Amino acid sequence: MALMTGEQYIESMRKLNLQVYMFGKKIDNVVDDPILRPSLNSVRMTYDLAQMPEYEDLMTATSSLTGEKINRFTHIHQSTQDLINKVRMQRLLGQKTAACFQRCVGMDASNAVFSTTYEIDQKYGTHYHENFKKFLTRVQQNDFTVDGAMTDPKGDRGKAPHAQDDPDLYLHVVERRPDGVVVRGAKAHQTGFINSHEVIVMPTIAMREADKDYAISFCCPTDAEGIFMIVGRQSCDTRKLEGAPMDTGNPEFGGTEALVIFDNVFIPNDQIFLNGEVEFAGMMVERFAGYHRQSYGGCKVGVGDVLIGAAALAADYNGCAKASHIKDKIIEMQHLNETLFGCGIACSALGKPTKSGNYLIDLLLANVCKQNVTRFPYEIVRLAEDIAGGLVVTAPSEIDLRDPKIGPYVDKYLKGVSSVSTENRLKVLRLIENLCLGTAAVGYRTESMHGAGSPQAQRIMISRQGNLEMKKELAKKIAHIEE
Amino acid sequence: MALMTGEQYIESMRKLNLQVYMFGKKIDNVVDDPILRPSLNSVRMTYDLAQMPEYEDLMTATSSLTGEKINRFTHIHQSTQDLINKVRMQRLLGQKTAACFQRCVGMDASNAVFSTTYEIDQKYGTHYHENFKKFLTRVQQNDFTVDGAMTDPKGDRGKAPHAQDDPDLYLHVVERRPDGVVVRGAKAHQTGFINSHEVIVMPTIAMREADKDYAISFCCPTDAEGIFMIVGRQSCDTRKLEGAPMDTGNPEFGGTEALVIFDNVFIPNDQIFLNGEVEFAGMMVERFAGYHRQSYGGCKVGVGDVLIGAAALAADYNGCAKASHIKDKIIEMQHLNETLFGCGIACSALGKPTKSGNYLIDLLLANVCKQNVTRFPYEIVRLAEDIAGGLVVTAPSEIDLRDPKIGPYVDKYLKGVSSVSTENRLKVLRLIENLCLGTAAVGYRTESMHGAGSPQAQRIMISRQGNLEMKKELAKKIAHIEE
Amino acid sequence: MALMTGEQYIESMRKLNLQVYMFGKKIDNVVDDPILRPSLNSVRMTYDLAQMPEYEDLMTATSSLTGEKINRFTHIHQSTQDLINKVRMQRLLGQKTAACFQRCVGMDASNAVFSTTYEIDQKYGTHYHENFKKFLTRVQQNDFTVDGAMTDPKGDRGKAPHAQDDPDLYLHVVERRPDGVVVRGAKAHQTGFINSHEVIVMPTIAMREADKDYAISFCCPTDAEGIFMIVGRQSCDTRKLEGAPMDTGNPEFGGTEALVIFDNVFIPNDQIFLNGEVEFAGMMVERFAGYHRQSYGGCKVGVGDVLIGAAALAADYNGCAKASHIKDKIIEMQHLNETLFGCGIACSALGKPTKSGNYLIDLLLANVCKQNVTRFPYEIVRLAEDIAGGLVVTAPSEIDLRDPKIGPYVDKYLKGVSSVSTENRLKVLRLIENLCLGTAAVGYRTESMHGAGSPQAQRIMISRQGNLEMKKELAKKIAHIEE
Amino acid sequence: MALMTGEQYIESMRKLNLQVYMFGKKIDNVVDDPILRPSLNSVRMTYDLAQMPEYEDLMTATSSLTGEKINRFTHIHQSTQDLINKVRMQRLLGQKTAACFQRCVGMDASNAVFSTTYEIDQKYGTHYHENFKKFLTRVQQNDFTVDGAMTDPKGDRGKAPHAQDDPDLYLHVVERRPDGVVVRGAKAHQTGFINSHEVIVMPTIAMREADKDYAISFCCPTDAEGIFMIVGRQSCDTRKLEGAPMDTGNPEFGGTEALVIFDNVFIPNDQIFLNGEVEFAGMMVERFAGYHRQSYGGCKVGVGDVLIGAAALAADYNGCAKASHIKDKIIEMQHLNETLFGCGIACSALGKPTKSGNYLIDLLLANVCKQNVTRFPYEIVRLAEDIAGGLVVTAPSEIDLRDPKIGPYVDKYLKGVSSVSTENRLKVLRLIENLCLGTAAVGYRTESMHGAGSPQAQRIMISRQGNLEMKKELAKKIAHIEE
Repeated sequence: MALMTGEQYIESMRKLNLQVYMFGKKIDNVVDDPILRPSLNSVRMTYDLAQMPEYEDLMTATSSLTGEKINRFTHIHQSTQDLINKVRMQRLLGQKTAACFQRCVGMDASNAVFSTTYEIDQKYGTHYHENFKKFLTRVQQNDFTVDGAMTDPKGDRGKAPHAQDDPDLYLHVVERRPDGVVVRGAKAHQTGFINSHEVIVMPTIAMREADKDYAISFCCPTDAEGIFMIVGRQSCDTRKLEGAPMDTGNPEFGGTEALVIFDNVFIPNDQIFLNGEVEFAGMMVERFAGYHRQSYGGCKVGVGDVLIGAAALAADYNGCAKASHIKDKIIEMQHLNETLFGCGIACSALGKPTKSGNYLIDLLLANVCKQNVTRFPYEIVRLAEDIAGGLVVTAPSEIDLRDPKIGPYVDKYLKGVSSVSTENRLKVLRLIENLCLGTAAVGYRTESMHGAGSPQAQRIMISRQGNLEMKKELAKKIAHIEE
Repeated sequence: MALMTGEQYIESMRKLNLQVYMFGKKIDNVVDDPILRPSLNSVRMTYDLAQMPEYEDLMTATSSLTGEKINRFTHIHQSTQDLINKVRMQRLLGQKTAACFQRCVGMDASNAVFSTTYEIDQKYGTHYHENFKKFLTRVQQNDFTVDGAMTDPKGDRGKAPHAQDDPDLYLHVVERRPDGVVVRGAKAHQTGFINSHEVIVMPTIAMREADKDYAISFCCPTDAEGIFMIVGRQSCDTRKLEGAPMDTGNPEFGGTEALVIFDNVFIPNDQIFLNGEVEFAGMMVERFAGYHRQSYGGCKVGVGDVLIGAAALAADYNGCAKASHIKDKIIEMQHLNETLFGCGIACSALGKPTKSGNYLIDLLLANVCKQNVTRFPYEIVRLAEDIAGGLVVTAPSEIDLRDPKIGPYVDKYLKGVSSVSTENRLKVLRLIENLCLGTAAVGYRTESMHGAGSPQAQRIMISRQGNLEMKKELAKKIAHIEE
Repeated sequence: MALMTGEQYIESMRKLNLQVYMFGKKIDNVVDDPILRPSLNSVRMTYDLAQMPEYEDLMTATSSLTGEKINRFTHIHQSTQDLINKVRMQRLLGQKTAACFQRCVGMDASNAVFSTTYEIDQKYGTHYHENFKKFLTRVQQNDFTVDGAMTDPKGDRGKAPHAQDDPDLYLHVVERRPDGVVVRGAKAHQTGFINSHEVIVMPTIAMREADKDYAISFCCPTDAEGIFMIVGRQSCDTRKLEGAPMDTGNPEFGGTEALVIFDNVFIPNDQIFLNGEVEFAGMMVERFAGYHRQSYGGCKVGVGDVLIGAAALAADYNGCAKASHIKDKIIEMQHLNETLFGCGIACSALGKPTKSGNYLIDLLLANVCKQNVTRFPYEIVRLAEDIAGGLVVTAPSEIDLRDPKIGPYVDKYLKGVSSVSTENRLKVLRLIENLCLGTAAVGYRTESMHGAGSPQAQRIMISRQGNLEMKKELAKKIAHIEE
Repeated sequence: MALMTGEQYIESMRKLNLQVYMFGKKIDNVVDDPILRPSLNSVRMTYDLAQMPEYEDLMTATSSLTGEKINRFTHIHQSTQDLINKVRMQRLLGQKTAACFQRCVGMDASNAVFSTTYEIDQKYGTHYHENFKKFLTRVQQNDFTVDGAMTDPKGDRGKAPHAQDDPDLYLHVVERRPDGVVVRGAKAHQTGFINSHEVIVMPTIAMREADKDYAISFCCPTDAEGIFMIVGRQSCDTRKLEGAPMDTGNPEFGGTEALVIFDNVFIPNDQIFLNGEVEFAGMMVERFAGYHRQSYGGCKVGVGDVLIGAAALAADYNGCAKASHIKDKIIEMQHLNETLFGCGIACSALGKPTKSGNYLIDLLLANVCKQNVTRFPYEIVRLAEDIAGGLVVTAPSEIDLRDPKIGPYVDKYLKGVSSVSTENRLKVLRLIENLCLGTAAVGYRTESMHGAGSPQAQRIMISRQGNLEMKKELAKKIAHIEE
């Protein structure tokens, strides 16, 4: 079963024994929960599209480990073309879901851990790389969805992991046994955990000797004993409970985030990828972050395509599509969106092989890519709100529209151009609301800001990778400065 | 009773017979409805502050009609100082509610109608100005809240009022009687209607002869026969029903918008302010829009103050307030916010008397003010989301926090600096969510975009008021160009 | 002679014995030097306009010292209306010269020194305020142009004045005599010095005890013994020597900057305004900077008006004035320019009296004003270059155009619309070049950036004046946070 | 002689009989003219670097026509890797010259004409492609520099070529002979013409039947009979005559622009690439523009690298390199610069083969690239001016610095940190002036704006290439809209 169908994926998720809490209650049936289901549907799309011949090139790859055809989300990148295809695949998924489809973190974690474990083993004679390859072979063979868990809660941002008042605010080893370790802590903002079979846990920052117990990376099933999740609230989350799908804007797809708690979880030795080799924590973080910053040059662009399309539709439905300022704003939205895509492609095209053989993106350009992602979606959203008009936030509910008494008034007075039904006009406005202020805004705006690292994290990397000294030498040469 | 207390205001609203619908149902008790109440509380603040000696200068004025002390929201501006005080009052209210307090539209409509009716009467010998003064005297004496209703649904934006498929898509006179007129149509995006005693209705665009029946302005009680309202949905509106006030971000205050339908409403002659004098529709619109664009240089600045304060608190609670990039972002937020305020003050300081004697803002600068309001709050929001961190959109619900089993984990893992409780940290993050994505984002973002006219409307006015020919002459003189 | 004519001003400058160097040579006739003369013409405009009845309100004021009618550039502001009129006067001058007219620094220095000396005297019983009033009375009676000299060369920016390797890198007292002091040092970037009768020297930063000798303020004639100037190069400065006025873009007006060296200059006691009272150095700097940051909300706006007019003319001459994107860019230029003006007006309208009775602008808004001035002129320039087209930087010289052989080809091929001569088209393009890249770009761009303090200086003031703690309290109240 | 040395190139230029006019005079010795020489040095760098082993990969390629090693500037792109290498080569050249090195237009014209002629021949059975290959083989064998001449003067922008008052305002065929055609007209803004051996002339816009005589493309030597050039003025051009190299900022390299007049030039048949096939004019323009918009993602980035280095050096020399706001501004400059580079790389990586077999960039991304180039260099310049300080525009001349009497004062007072000489500090400031306001600003700013088409030209292409209909379909699917 190298490739699961979407339906098989859903069924496979039913078999897991996930511990998920929301609004103070444990969810019995995670798969069919109306608040969570749209996020599962988004992951499912990664399986559905892989079955379609027209997307085969983008959605599948040949495994470097087994030679078999696998879902690209489980692939170890073998070339710059692989890196480019990854970004194009992500754009496609964004277009098809208008949401976060969550499966990227596992792909990005896999590629980062693959190369980092190779270099740790080279230095220390450990067997992390072998551990990882075994794990990934199993993932590929079963077509698993894997979460990559990096972000610790961090507590006081001004203090190192070991210096926090509560030592658990960064995940760490609390017991060392002959056959493995016990870990405690939490990972925050986990977008795909609830919909994943397995998780790769990584440290969240570069570390020093005093943080040795925090320098831990491993994999485990998402329903391992001691793990539980508390679902985060999203703007407009409970609209999905109202039985009025139009008001959700995107009735089928969504994302989700959870606080995942590791409450004394045992990790066997052969699932460990880093264990105290503190100087490699930074490399793992930097590479994962690099891949994940590249990712945003694909997925957010796809979501942006939907928002651009929605804004253009709204202009059509409002009867103002030919106004020159409307056309110009749509051009600007496209310009910004394609700039993001350009950066995602560029860091891929200039990728290079690591010592382990897989391909790493150009780190400078990947950080530049993500830095733009922390800006442009906000402007695209602003332009969409401009084009769509105030009705995006003042339209009555779908229940009003359907009401026998009130409905006809809503229908009459919220009509746009004569060829389009009020219902369709409201649908596209709700989609815009969803992306600008609603559940999807969490993914399109805030995740664009903080996912894969907050803007300042990219700036630090740009500073490190920018080779300023070389540029000073260029200037000296031009100005005939001799020191 | 020249000045009501807040409590008296609330009681006065109970006496109205408003027809309000929401989610397909008629609301029996509008005043105590949990979704609507926060917006009533915001209006109430305009009464409460007027009772406080420290705000007397800003909140009250001496009536030019009666010589009595009145709430400034019912005042006809007598000087540039009045115009400046208006803006400062609005900033104060924004600071105290972090929401739209709704009472500005009536003030802005009153000042626009006051001067326009004077000029219509001068030309046509009508008695609109007298009608209006009688109405306003009653408003001042009773300290009423007045809505100003301008925006028609507009249907196909590419067609004039009379050319729409459905003639009701702009409000118009459908019957003319000796003692008055009957009107039909709707006004969209009405922020204060539900919390107002009276309404001033105005046309929404400049008109030509063919639109004569649409050139109608009048006042009437908000519970006049034939009027009913359908409440618009806001992002996160139903969180107010969950009994978890923390999750609302701003548990006390809010705004609201409604689609108001005038289903054959009779308007007696002495409540009419414009009736077919088409060439004055544009003047009324332009002046109202001008005053209201000035307003945004006050109210949104006050809301911005709260968001800046919230972001600074979040930085404190996260333990990163001293990071130079955080400090710089807060400075930028303040810079942008004060630029908006500066424009609001400037168009006031350069105001001039109209023929009727009241003061009109500088129209060019008022449009410049509003144009900036369509941009800077979005950037302030972006910076707030940057500073606050991803937890703004991934934190579990208050119910989780209060849960005996799950709560301690939330409390433990979402702790920031040691001196601040997790609860307080989450409260400020929820406030930021409220302003950036939640109910208040409707007011702070989308209303900043479209309220008082969409951005393009200001650009047209800037173009008209900018005196480009004079500037060409300046350039010719400097460049020694003789034609 | 309370008001000089422009001609009288020019003649008065001939009588000075200024020591001016340029390109390694001492200038014998400063007044008629072709490189310097345009900057003199700009100052002259402050005299010419004061003679014209239509500008009397803006250009003149009634002296608070003598009760006589004086040029507003020598006035001590008595009201917010005075502050507003100052900004409007500056915009007018910018429109008439498209250059820096230099006389503002003296006005701003006078108002800062007026109030600061009053407060020093209150604390120390000194007689600086009396000294200053005597000086200013003389200035008003003679209608002098006064330079305000603040910026020291500063050497290593990381070190305090007294800690510099060379103690002279900040101007300081090198000898103390019974009848006065001897000072040494330099003032950089002096825009008006060469065209002024007198100078007010001030310290450039807040100081501590160790910098006591650097805390010195005084006035003296610009041709006092020991003072000499070295003229700074401007982009395209020598075009003024070519005898081809068209190529200068602005043949009549300009600005100038000089490095002014005080090589052991004796200052009598009654010309001293500060002498070692270190804690007042900061107040003097802050107030001068505040007034001068306000100024930029006037003068640069006037220059912006000319550039907007020139861009609009260029569009006319190119035949593309009706293209919607051109119109939109001109609107944007106006919007940005008026935002600057709005900030200049706002900080004036909210001004308050100092202890000495003169009016000080609102410091927060004045800094916000200047911060915008460090940004918007650059964008206005960018838009002007966009509208004007590449010919701005590729057109042949005026000499080519006038050449009997080559000229006809230039004339033929660089023709725009048929109704406009090639000569006029080139003239307006040269004016745009002048403002975007040429001599006037020094004033319109770089001076907008660094004059009255670099951007970071304003950010520090915004941070100090922004009252962040109050804003945090607002947020706490809204979010129901109790600590 | 497949590759010339730099010296050989210079000598080859001496042999041409170019007709060049400047300031009304014919230049006898073009090669050694002090105003023009720096631009020749820039082109020479394309020869010098091609001789250096470390740049061989970037600077040379294997000819697809002859199989020989050639300079990449004469190459027909055979792969996306070739397209990427082109951009990287251009960045390198920008770094080494900090100017426009001019040789790109010929390369871009060659690749556009190569594929367009192939498609014309396919349709019409003409022999343009063969003509072109013969021409290019000669260019490659002789390592010629080729200009690509597209931009006509255009006259009234509102009128088509044939509708201009003067028919010569677009270059056109004025006589048709059996052995060729005679053309008349001019090409404006020609950056490399003066330093080229040959020129490829192309039409400047898409055309209709009435413009048949204007649909003409051909090659000819730059010294063909009837061709002459009038050099355009650049900001600060005559500084190069002063014998004070420091004041030029970049003493060795520069760019140049000329108005080139074709005064009845005979073109033999075998040098013609398009002759009346009007529907192909647009394709030729679009492809050339596409390649040239890609180019700007390389060359301007290289120049940007020098400016970033210069700003960083200035910060070092001023003693403020460690200030957090300075560091942040340098990061921002790098971020913007790398975004440009990313777009240049991206449109290359997604390139595709044309029917003729050579590779064309992705047109959408190439236009996005250029659109960013019309913005970011302006912001990079603004930040450079911010970091560098006001001395950039107020420093005295080099002659003052070298003057025995005045020089020591300049040296003393303009010293920055103690370890750096005043001379070196001034040199780097002059370089910044050169790039921000001086001769190089013409290339770095205005050419970034208008070169390869003004911003609106890219927006039209983005609109055409953006596939908005597909995006609307995406939105409909997500929102469940059925029409």
